[in-house]
Amino acid sequence: MKLLFFTVSRERAALYEQAIALYLKRLQPFAQTGEWNFPTAEALLAKVAQQRGRTKSLLVLLDSQGKLFSSEEFAAWLQRERDGGRPSIVFAIGPASGWPEEARNQADLLLSLGPMTLPHELARVVLAEQVYRAFTIMAGHPYHLGH
Amino acid sequence: MKLLFFTVSRERAALYEQAIALYLKRLQPFAQTGEWNFPTAEALLAKVAQQRGRTKSLLVLLDSQGKLFSSEEFAAWLQRERDGGRPSIVFAIGPASGWPEEARNQADLLLSLGPMTLPHELARVVLAEQVYRAFTIMAGHPYHLGH
Repeated sequence: MKLLFFTVSRERAALYEQAIALYLKRLQPFAQTGEWNFPTAEALLAKVAQQRGRTKSLLVLLDSQGKLFSSEEFAAWLQRERDGGRPSIVFAIGPASGWPEEARNQADLLLSLGPMTLPHELARVVLAEQVYRAFTIMAGHPYHLGH
Repeated sequence: MKLLFFTVSRERAALYEQAIALYLKRLQPFAQTGEWNFPTAEALLAKVAQQRGRTKSLLVLLDSQGKLFSSEEFAAWLQRERDGGRPSIVFAIGPASGWPEEARNQADLLLSLGPMTLPHELARVVLAEQVYRAFTIMAGHPYHLGH
């Protein structure tokens, strides 16, 4: 299973790079991962369309108005996709101005990390940590119990 | 107004220290801040009791089953406390095993950062960022609009 982390950002803060790299590295035994940044939401959607032309990729948009999951519910959702043979999932964090309507219409899931607004760089960390946590829950790995 | 960030943790990860220091520094124009770590929830509660003996300190426990606020609602809550003359607020992040019942009974507010379980170190970052964000919302500072 391939997990693609897409962002729309004009600048990249160094503050969280180490934490994000740590969670992506820990994901390696569970899934192939990739990170891409796009200058605009339109450029991101064009890449998703191209991706979907080749494979049944799922598009998950991070959105504070989206669906709230507990870590266990999120793991159950991810497990269903994995066990159903989903080849890849795109997790996309949008521009500061929010997602254009066009993006929402194309999404398979609007996922909320909580009702509080997070800076995009911090949302990247929380997302990467939750995806890693989901795989440890699926694997019965003690990580989730330790926190 | 004094904001005290209390944690219960046996180890301290260096991964997020820079981010937490950044938000506490940015809070300086708005409030006096302090950070304390305790080996146990009981030690933390003893410090809170001592604190409350001196001043009308509010105790906010972070708890994933607690109250969910949007950033704007959290700012409105903090503004009411500040404008009502609250001298200090303790924000406390509990042990990995969760808060003992005794701690919940003493809390003025159980605050949830979202239904997903975060590692304690990451919860510290999100809390510090949200408290900073709340003060920028109160001050009409553009930080909140930029994300």
